[in-house]
Amino acid sequence: MIIKLIISYDGTNYCGYQKQKNGVSVQEVLEQAIEKATGKIISTTASGRTDAGVHAEGQVVSFSYEGSIPPERFYLALNPLLPSDIRAVDSCIEKEDFNARKSAKKKTYSYSFYYSGVELPLKDRYALCLEKEPNLAKIKECAKLLEGEHDFKAFCATKSSVKSTTRTIYSIKIEEKTDGFSINVSGSGFLYNMVRIIAGTLLDVGYEKKTKEDILLALKDGKREHLSKTLPAKALTLKQVEY
Amino acid sequence: MIIKLIISYDGTNYCGYQKQKNGVSVQEVLEQAIEKATGKIISTTASGRTDAGVHAEGQVVSFSYEGSIPPERFYLALNPLLPSDIRAVDSCIEKEDFNARKSAKKKTYSYSFYYSGVELPLKDRYALCLEKEPNLAKIKECAKLLEGEHDFKAFCATKSSVKSTTRTIYSIKIEEKTDGFSINVSGSGFLYNMVRIIAGTLLDVGYEKKTKEDILLALKDGKREHLSKTLPAKALTLKQVEY
Repeated sequence: MIIKLIISYDGTNYCGYQKQKNGVSVQEVLEQAIEKATGKIISTTASGRTDAGVHAEGQVVSFSYEGSIPPERFYLALNPLLPSDIRAVDSCIEKEDFNARKSAKKKTYSYSFYYSGVELPLKDRYALCLEKEPNLAKIKECAKLLEGEHDFKAFCATKSSVKSTTRTIYSIKIEEKTDGFSINVSGSGFLYNMVRIIAGTLLDVGYEKKTKEDILLALKDGKREHLSKTLPAKALTLKQVEY
Repeated sequence: MIIKLIISYDGTNYCGYQKQKNGVSVQEVLEQAIEKATGKIISTTASGRTDAGVHAEGQVVSFSYEGSIPPERFYLALNPLLPSDIRAVDSCIEKEDFNARKSAKKKTYSYSFYYSGVELPLKDRYALCLEKEPNLAKIKECAKLLEGEHDFKAFCATKSSVKSTTRTIYSIKIEEKTDGFSINVSGSGFLYNMVRIIAGTLLDVGYEKKTKEDILLALKDGKREHLSKTLPAKALTLKQVEY
């Protein structure tokens, strides 16, 4: 049978979701726990990789399993075998053709900011410190330009090599909080560093360092240079994957 | 001159505020940074010690300093010399008789809970996971019993040895959040583990494992056995010290 597993993790101490030669990955630690729980070596597929330091509330993983653990209790069997910064939060049986990556319809990421003159240890693990409040109205206005299907070539790390750089952003919502805000981006899928480049560029729009025209130009000619720097990983969280 | 310094820290990796033989304390790391910034060995006084693993948003530290760093910029000089889990957030000059411990009039601690069937890595660092929502009305009712001046002998770790166990609690407020709540306790001062015992007992009141009568009895005869266990340090934060 095919099992769908939802996991949450604090990415601070991992080299990213996907297995790598250098550094401990979330996937490696998760697959070790699955092996301990089932006695079998099982390879898993996630909805997508998250970069080093990026967190997840609802990463989705699928794998094939034959054994005695009931699918809806599978997550409970894993938690005692996982470190405290990774938790399985739910599990269920899925159709035979379900694949966490290929079947994904919509992913939502959130990039968080807080306002403070100095970095605050109790906020800084999951959000980026901003000394002054940007113009959120301007950010909201420019976020609209990115919604829809576009060639996001300019919005990915230059070392990235993918066939198509066309993606669809369903929505970019600016969520205002008492002491900061977050940029919540939902889309069909994302290029390497895409959300962190979007967040960095929209932030600069809020500080009037970038304009509507820079964004329109980047969408048109695909040049990374029109956009702002990639913001740090620590403030980015994969919130949800929908199927 | 006397400098008042406000510091914030993530207590996870420290053996507590106060210097100890075994383990790294916040005080030790802070005093090392002050020494690097000033070139002088300066001993500091904090408003009070926080236990191993307890966090602070607004711990207050005072010390005597003669030198060229302006008092209102002292905190800025320290931050590049501190690890990222400790930050100085403000500083100013104080009267010659100011002492962060002796002059303190009111301290506020907050104990935080979140609701979830499993521990969530992105919340669990600073809050305690509760599988089900307790009866907050009962908690609020019993919190009122603890307000005022009382002998809190029953509300401290048995290994504690202090002259008087009488303290004044100015208020206990239950702050409801979308996915949990916190117990905010303000008082003249607190005994060893007092807030964590109050939080544990009030939580059990909410689950109907403890009653109003248990609390009244504990206040009357001073026996620790009427109360609940000391909750973990990680969900406790020293919010503010007032003078």
